[in-house]
Amino acid sequence: MSKSNCSDCTCRLANEVGQLKAIVNAQSRTLAKLVRQMKEGCKKDEEAKESTLCGLNPCLKCLQPDILYHLGLNTETTDFPKVFGDVRFVCMGGTPGRMENFAYYVMQEIGLKINAATKLRNISEAGQRFSLFKVGPVLCASHGMGCPSISILLHELIKMMYHAKCKDPVFIRIGTSGGIGVEPGTVIISSEAIDGRLNPAHEILVHGASVQHASQLDESLADEIKMCHDPCKDSYEAVIGRTLCAHDFYEGQSRLDGAFCEYTPEMKKTYLETLQSQQVKNIEMESLAFAALTSRANIRGAVVCVAILNRLNGDQIKTPHDVLSKWEKRPQELVARYIRKVLYHNDDDDESEQPEDEAEAGAGGAGDTQKAPAEEAE
Amino acid sequence: MSKSNCSDCTCRLANEVGQLKAIVNAQSRTLAKLVRQMKEGCKKDEEAKESTLCGLNPCLKCLQPDILYHLGLNTETTDFPKVFGDVRFVCMGGTPGRMENFAYYVMQEIGLKINAATKLRNISEAGQRFSLFKVGPVLCASHGMGCPSISILLHELIKMMYHAKCKDPVFIRIGTSGGIGVEPGTVIISSEAIDGRLNPAHEILVHGASVQHASQLDESLADEIKMCHDPCKDSYEAVIGRTLCAHDFYEGQSRLDGAFCEYTPEMKKTYLETLQSQQVKNIEMESLAFAALTSRANIRGAVVCVAILNRLNGDQIKTPHDVLSKWEKRPQELVARYIRKVLYHNDDDDESEQPEDEAEAGAGGAGDTQKAPAEEAE
Repeated sequence: MSKSNCSDCTCRLANEVGQLKAIVNAQSRTLAKLVRQMKEGCKKDEEAKESTLCGLNPCLKCLQPDILYHLGLNTETTDFPKVFGDVRFVCMGGTPGRMENFAYYVMQEIGLKINAATKLRNISEAGQRFSLFKVGPVLCASHGMGCPSISILLHELIKMMYHAKCKDPVFIRIGTSGGIGVEPGTVIISSEAIDGRLNPAHEILVHGASVQHASQLDESLADEIKMCHDPCKDSYEAVIGRTLCAHDFYEGQSRLDGAFCEYTPEMKKTYLETLQSQQVKNIEMESLAFAALTSRANIRGAVVCVAILNRLNGDQIKTPHDVLSKWEKRPQELVARYIRKVLYHNDDDDESEQPEDEAEAGAGGAGDTQKAPAEEAE
Repeated sequence: MSKSNCSDCTCRLANEVGQLKAIVNAQSRTLAKLVRQMKEGCKKDEEAKESTLCGLNPCLKCLQPDILYHLGLNTETTDFPKVFGDVRFVCMGGTPGRMENFAYYVMQEIGLKINAATKLRNISEAGQRFSLFKVGPVLCASHGMGCPSISILLHELIKMMYHAKCKDPVFIRIGTSGGIGVEPGTVIISSEAIDGRLNPAHEILVHGASVQHASQLDESLADEIKMCHDPCKDSYEAVIGRTLCAHDFYEGQSRLDGAFCEYTPEMKKTYLETLQSQQVKNIEMESLAFAALTSRANIRGAVVCVAILNRLNGDQIKTPHDVLSKWEKRPQELVARYIRKVLYHNDDDDESEQPEDEAEAGAGGAGDTQKAPAEEAE
């Protein structure tokens, strides 16, 4: 055996030992928890059978049925606790196609499988607005473009979590953005979302009056996702920074190539440089509503976007399609690693479940009439 | 022959006479125009070979190529004047499916046909954001939900009209909305778009400063579309009224069934009654950006929406799917009649073209490499 082969082998074994230790730890915690529950009786378990979300509409329990119009689902025809009760991660991104790809990707990354004769179904097809795929504990949804669009999705997904009695779901937006002073291809994990005036608040008009909701994101979640980036192995940078959320793609982002443009290149330069001096790393169009609505419900939320250009160098997106596709996968990679870590290797989480090689495949479907696709543990 | 048969026959003949007269008039106008052009030489024709849009970004002509990123088109790989130069009507609605159906419907209504072995192609498929179908002089696009989403579409469609040198295109949004004091199923043609404070202006943030753009719609166009409604034959009402544009579906529209609700049913009632007293007939989510952007470019624009519920009576949309589908077709019907009328029977328009039974089918495709689908005049 050559020296190089031997070194590879040692490295692989060391990795396996590390993984096995993590599994043993997770199993120990599960065992300890079960013993504790048996001692304490079932009281605690019953208490946990309510959603952990806070600050919601008190009238939700009176809605019988509650019709989630844009998701094409309602509480009368779908048994929410049964179909969605196991959801722990809600991932969302702009386009239906990207989120379908992400669903298959995350399925593979967390070691779940569906019968080869089946495929994931868009659970929200009847609503004709969003796409929604379920892969075991992960929901993958498309949110369209802009705060109004994602706010509709979030209202209905938060209601879904409530009706399904989900416990501590984590919401993550993965997307694309225009970078500010960063190399194209860099992944930016948002520390907070700010508006065009650099205020960390999402404004809505209620009965004609302005109401501001803080647009903070979960700092520890951002750190945990950042830790899933491997600076040695990953061929790109991942940074944490402020994200500006605009309400349009052209004038609100100071682009010079919109149908209308009533400012000069110099005014644009000054504005973008101001953003840079204020630690703004990127501009996108959904983070304000995402941050405001998740934090109002006490949901841990993160926004993870790749920069597809550096706005200090231009406006038009000229990068070839295949390169863009590769870049778009970077936030997906980090988020899939994070989910995998939480599910199987998280030392601080006493909820860790069975490791991948023992996992029952759980890519479920929706609706009382539509059972989960035939599942198999290969 | 019975009396009833005779009366039917007379009625049919009278109709035919009316249609033939309209065709003769249209042909006379075309002949007169041709004679005039021959007398004046080709000067006027050459002058007309620029887009009639106003107030656009002066830098558009410098963009070589101009990449319409979200439409997946650019001026280098697509010959815009050739592919889109004949567009006279740009119709848009929320979902890709509805706009594809509308494209086939309008094709039939204006007497165009495509080869039975072909189908309409989503010209914007590469952009992954919107759907875009072309049926002769009619473009049909989906715009997603909310002002930010439709504003991206409009910037890029307006740039398309500019590059394609389109002449006086008419933009029409067809959609669904929540009615205020109207019978569900009623079609509302917007007189103007107003925000949650009842101001007829669309606010955008440019370099952090608020910029307001008037959100007026074309009154004469609204009247012309209203005249396509036949109160005797159509089983629904069509009214002209003010349209409130909200930036979210739940709190911004004073719904009681959102994930969050920090007001009482009484406060909701007071707000909706105020709207009713101010001649607001419906609430939707795109008219402000639509009205502001079309009027900035001097494009005649109209918003035609069906009310799928009366918000004074509730929030949730409980109407069965098949009834909703029928209602959704009503704005499409009126707009298709309007387009047909302008193309073939408009006495005031000296641009009228050949009548249906002489029409060359013209459902085109896009891109230099993708020619229009094989066409046939059946």
